[in-house]
Amino acid sequence: MADIAKALPLKRSSVQAAHAQIKKHVHRTPVLTSTTLSELASTPQTPETLVGTPFEGQTPARPKINFFFKCENYQRIGAFKIRGAFHALSRLDKEELAKGVVTHSSGNHAQALALAARTYGITAHIVMPTISTPSKIAATKGYGAKVYFSGSTSEEREAVLNEVIEVTGAILVHPYDHPDIILGQGTMALELEEQYAEMIREDPSLSIYYQKDKAINGHTDDTNGAHEPGSPYLSAVIAPIGGGGMLSGIATALHPTPTHVFGAEPSFQGADDARRGLAANERITSVKTLTIADGLRTPVGSIPWAIISDKSKCRGIFAVTEEQILAAMKLVLERMKVFVEPSAVVGLAVALFDEEFRGLVEREGGVEGWDVGVVLSGGNTTVEAVGKMFGVGDVKGGRLEGKLGMNGEKTAENVAG
Amino acid sequence: MADIAKALPLKRSSVQAAHAQIKKHVHRTPVLTSTTLSELASTPQTPETLVGTPFEGQTPARPKINFFFKCENYQRIGAFKIRGAFHALSRLDKEELAKGVVTHSSGNHAQALALAARTYGITAHIVMPTISTPSKIAATKGYGAKVYFSGSTSEEREAVLNEVIEVTGAILVHPYDHPDIILGQGTMALELEEQYAEMIREDPSLSIYYQKDKAINGHTDDTNGAHEPGSPYLSAVIAPIGGGGMLSGIATALHPTPTHVFGAEPSFQGADDARRGLAANERITSVKTLTIADGLRTPVGSIPWAIISDKSKCRGIFAVTEEQILAAMKLVLERMKVFVEPSAVVGLAVALFDEEFRGLVEREGGVEGWDVGVVLSGGNTTVEAVGKMFGVGDVKGGRLEGKLGMNGEKTAENVAG
Repeated sequence: MADIAKALPLKRSSVQAAHAQIKKHVHRTPVLTSTTLSELASTPQTPETLVGTPFEGQTPARPKINFFFKCENYQRIGAFKIRGAFHALSRLDKEELAKGVVTHSSGNHAQALALAARTYGITAHIVMPTISTPSKIAATKGYGAKVYFSGSTSEEREAVLNEVIEVTGAILVHPYDHPDIILGQGTMALELEEQYAEMIREDPSLSIYYQKDKAINGHTDDTNGAHEPGSPYLSAVIAPIGGGGMLSGIATALHPTPTHVFGAEPSFQGADDARRGLAANERITSVKTLTIADGLRTPVGSIPWAIISDKSKCRGIFAVTEEQILAAMKLVLERMKVFVEPSAVVGLAVALFDEEFRGLVEREGGVEGWDVGVVLSGGNTTVEAVGKMFGVGDVKGGRLEGKLGMNGEKTAENVAG
Repeated sequence: MADIAKALPLKRSSVQAAHAQIKKHVHRTPVLTSTTLSELASTPQTPETLVGTPFEGQTPARPKINFFFKCENYQRIGAFKIRGAFHALSRLDKEELAKGVVTHSSGNHAQALALAARTYGITAHIVMPTISTPSKIAATKGYGAKVYFSGSTSEEREAVLNEVIEVTGAILVHPYDHPDIILGQGTMALELEEQYAEMIREDPSLSIYYQKDKAINGHTDDTNGAHEPGSPYLSAVIAPIGGGGMLSGIATALHPTPTHVFGAEPSFQGADDARRGLAANERITSVKTLTIADGLRTPVGSIPWAIISDKSKCRGIFAVTEEQILAAMKLVLERMKVFVEPSAVVGLAVALFDEEFRGLVEREGGVEGWDVGVVLSGGNTTVEAVGKMFGVGDVKGGRLEGKLGMNGEKTAENVAG
């Protein structure tokens, strides 16, 4: 990548500069609301649901939560990764670009870099494990990338990667551990806050706390200059964390604003490395998990860690179980009718099921509640994979169905931002 | 229902009147475009793909097709049926309303009538087969309806229905065979043509034939007064047909415009009753099919038949196989990231796979091609059902994958209308 010493500083104005660079290449993805899901999140869990969880015996929280979903599954290549890839390329000079770019990835970053490179008219070299699914290999090749195969261990991968770099001189583009990537991913937060403000100005009833013809109750940001005076803003944004490029980018973009930033990750087989690292006050550098949220199996990188471990930038990280991820995914597919991958819904799962987060919203949001931005990060899965995930006996739907029963209407109310 | 003799005449102005009545109760559902799917439809099928089909040995057609998807899966209750239900109730007088309403349905019409009745503050009585899926029974009860159970034969159903009517005096609301329903469903066509015109005016490049700063090549409608002079219009709209309420409503709404209307239905086990009826010049009144497009298992009703068998209103009906429906559904879910039920995609399947339709577009659309409105009628299915549909060995994806391989980019480009 571009020399880290030349990178823009990790602050909001740099995210704004990144946005100006990549705007023409990425979609301004829609922001959707859902009455059904917001009502669901605003209904207390039953005490029975909490049995067997860390929250057993507690009085269920009564938060008021109103969702705004930033739908990066509608982004180019079907996921947010294209933002960072385009920004990384925009930071290379002509000479560097001429060498081509290289990365190892079997997922969305591979396709993102391939598409960005094609757009720049340069070569992308992608190292993928031999065992990658054929459709992902085909998709990456479909964007014109040169694909190299390696074994599955990180040593085998590094060996092939280094060989490619030696032979081609291509510039490495890391999937998350670089300021250029972080600033690129953070651009979604700028769009989300802008779209939110537009939506609320057009239809104040979309907000849980906006009162027409009055100042927004304590929710106008006229203190720090990040927004126009009187601009409505989200109480919080919650986003998935794997390597941490996206979450740290969002935290960087929103740092000077009053919007709180939270992270969400799976807990399965220790995938909650960021949460555990924060508790231990030390970054965890190795994780081995097969969580269904396959985009979030990576431990958090060192530069993202420096950002998300700063409480003033990221207020907390919460972890959810595989069952909670599946329950959230079922809701997004069946109720919102939006097709997402499992990694995309961990933020929603936290808002629906994590009593610590829900208690926090109850305490701080009070009777008014919180407008919460939730990042749906991508939609790259298949109908066959969905079939396997929801195979008979895999889903514990009891709790979910019970909660849904309280809800009259079965619909997504979509508002494009 | 309201006395048929008092119904509005089956013409465009009545659909406009219906729209004025129901507007406040229904969503103006979004219209989405997809570069990927339009490119796919504009790529000829391979001769190998046509082996074993009625088109074997023909030269594959080379149509240019540009899709505009009317997403009624984002409608209230998750399907278009709410339009007809609200319109039917709006046509009842106070005395009639006081008696309550009744229907038999195990599907979207049940939930639509239940929600509309609740909104009007009256009782909906719904007769459902005992074997209905528990989630549909729960959803219908969730809207406040009184549910009655019957056996599965039409005699058993009728018996319970008549009993309910006798005891309660409730007014029957038929799912499709009544002008009030037809005019209600037709309202989606008015929105679609309006949204299309708005979208093209804002971004002419969304149209396949609009040329900026020029008249739209032969595609302005300034002849018959249905549109403003110079208004851009769709070449065609294609919609699913089961009982025919929706298709006949659309045909009625668009009759005086230059937009051609087509119907699409499954062929499995004779579900293509409308197509076969047109060929035989006689309505087929009985069908027994278990097509996965479960909303389209019904034979076409007598009033819809009178409309769709009028060539000047509906130009033709095409039928697709179960495999083609699954292939189209896979595309909408995985590429557009939009969650739909199998019945919703039969129109898309026709545009992608039916050589007769594709040949017609090639002939009439020529080098410019056609902007085609496709109705995605609903999204009420479950992840478990999707899992079953796409279980290993069920999908013949070879042809599909081959075609997709030609396409670089894996994304939906969504434009809200």
